[in-house]
Amino acid sequence: MKKLLLGIFVLLTGGFAGAQVRFVDAGELTLIGKALPTEHPYHRIDTAVYKGFTPTENQQIRCSAGLAIVFRTNTSRLDLFPHYSSFVYRGGSTPRVASEGFDLYIRQDGEWLYAASRDSGKRGKSFTLISGMDTSEKECLLYLPNYSELLSLQIGVDEGASITPLENPFRHKIVIFGSSFTHGVSTSRAGMSYPMQIERNTGLYFCSIACSGNCKLQPYFADYLGDVKDADAMVFDGFSNPDAKMIRERLIPFIARIREKLPTTPLIFVQTIYRESCNFNLAVRAREEAKQAAAREMMAQAMREFDGIYFIDKANLTGTDHATSADGTHPSDLGYWRWAQNLQPELLKVLRKCGIR
Amino acid sequence: MKKLLLGIFVLLTGGFAGAQVRFVDAGELTLIGKALPTEHPYHRIDTAVYKGFTPTENQQIRCSAGLAIVFRTNTSRLDLFPHYSSFVYRGGSTPRVASEGFDLYIRQDGEWLYAASRDSGKRGKSFTLISGMDTSEKECLLYLPNYSELLSLQIGVDEGASITPLENPFRHKIVIFGSSFTHGVSTSRAGMSYPMQIERNTGLYFCSIACSGNCKLQPYFADYLGDVKDADAMVFDGFSNPDAKMIRERLIPFIARIREKLPTTPLIFVQTIYRESCNFNLAVRAREEAKQAAAREMMAQAMREFDGIYFIDKANLTGTDHATSADGTHPSDLGYWRWAQNLQPELLKVLRKCGIR
Repeated sequence: MKKLLLGIFVLLTGGFAGAQVRFVDAGELTLIGKALPTEHPYHRIDTAVYKGFTPTENQQIRCSAGLAIVFRTNTSRLDLFPHYSSFVYRGGSTPRVASEGFDLYIRQDGEWLYAASRDSGKRGKSFTLISGMDTSEKECLLYLPNYSELLSLQIGVDEGASITPLENPFRHKIVIFGSSFTHGVSTSRAGMSYPMQIERNTGLYFCSIACSGNCKLQPYFADYLGDVKDADAMVFDGFSNPDAKMIRERLIPFIARIREKLPTTPLIFVQTIYRESCNFNLAVRAREEAKQAAAREMMAQAMREFDGIYFIDKANLTGTDHATSADGTHPSDLGYWRWAQNLQPELLKVLRKCGIR
Repeated sequence: MKKLLLGIFVLLTGGFAGAQVRFVDAGELTLIGKALPTEHPYHRIDTAVYKGFTPTENQQIRCSAGLAIVFRTNTSRLDLFPHYSSFVYRGGSTPRVASEGFDLYIRQDGEWLYAASRDSGKRGKSFTLISGMDTSEKECLLYLPNYSELLSLQIGVDEGASITPLENPFRHKIVIFGSSFTHGVSTSRAGMSYPMQIERNTGLYFCSIACSGNCKLQPYFADYLGDVKDADAMVFDGFSNPDAKMIRERLIPFIARIREKLPTTPLIFVQTIYRESCNFNLAVRAREEAKQAAAREMMAQAMREFDGIYFIDKANLTGTDHATSADGTHPSDLGYWRWAQNLQPELLKVLRKCGIR
């Protein structure tokens, strides 16, 4: 029935951008990556329902990082026609392909294989993401921009081609809250954030509410997380943004607040990574070491006070050759790829302990 | 004497940006990476002397890609005050840190260790690249922007600190001509282009005249290269930009033209890499395979016709997991890091054959 309705919609919108391509609204396909429903199609948290966020936090959680559209199609090309609000984050270390562009994977022999990625070019125009494909039916995973507020997205296919929703290909539900590292600053494209890499590698479903610069163990994030009743586990890159003092003050109350609503959900905290600016900047080095020490101390206390709390405190998640930094703080794709490769076995170990596999 | 003059200059320009930092012109330090001298300090080819380039080629070879300033200093911080022309390339896959920013390495235990990198922020203002360092004397390698025409650069140090030229720390002279891959599109920062990685890893001196989209075996580039009499070898990423037909038509005349001026200089050609857009775009796949086949065929002929011609035709320089692309064509740092790691031993083998080690 859903397919029939979509078929009708598709016929009605045919010819949207010329004779060769017809567009369907991505809303008619399957959107994955959202921890809880939102009224706005591409916001990650419903900021009309959840309050207390700062203006910057509101902007970040309205970005489509970690969201993706999944669908089946036998088209030879895919065009995209996105509409954005005025908010696009333009950090110096993040290319436009990642901040406002799209990143396409296609399933081949059971694996998600990179297909295409690009920035969206001029506003108010459609663009071709990929062409020249054979017309066998394919399963597609299209990541949305990391740092833009997307208002709508039309997906264009060959006039005679089908495009239908695909069921969420990932299993379980793991909510991840984190800093810019988790949000995906300095990645080359949306699919290269480490949670999305681990998702494709393992098949485990990640819903990211990462919030660049603003993952600071805030009570209103705890309130939100407490409402995600069907989460199988929660992962926290929670020691990257707060300083040592904040970690000491906020970690226990943050966990307690989640535990009020979710008494047993596994809560897995990950130590913050080494920042390459520490190689020579002694002030940053001292600050980072103090944060790491505070995280260790407070995690030990948290694990004594609460059940189901885990701490992954593994050194050198991005390697030891110091080649991985984009700007002294954030990894490049080289760093994020290693991070995913090194964190994944540690995370799987904990998840298996919790019966999630 | 040079140090004395610099000292006087430094005194004269002291206090340029307030009491704490004094600026020196980078021209008073050591500039490395230029194959032949130019009148303009940061152009790679003197376009008043060498003619025939298209307007786009002129723009590209006036960018400071592959150039670096080397110096000694005991400052605790480094500020930079760059001035640019209006030309900055803003491709969607290249972050501003790489296109217009700076990338600093400091020598530690004989190795070049990443220190800091950032974009230059607002025009007409200085910015702090690094602070918080101890004040031991350090050897610094500061890469200039990949995709900007830099008009001048002032380097700021603590008011009481010294800053003096360092001799070029690299040995031999290898000129490299190539496409955007070699120029450094989609790197996170200037030091991550593969020639600069190999330079730091091996100590071999690379002078890059890479020219994004425009390394097409042009006769006027051959004329320029023929004038670099003191080059120990030349490396070519020469099969990425031309199509198969162009490779067939141009390769032999291109080599012949260089050989007129340089009868024995080793000329080392590298096969173009796999483009990840070929995973599903059959049109691109066919075009790329035709290019690679033409390169193989013409290189065989070139090696029969000329002495001192080498061809590195190694598959999978960026790996086989298809995780390395920024935009389907250009690698991310992950791809460039693997490229450097995989090309380096092959290149060293050829160079050793030529007596360069």
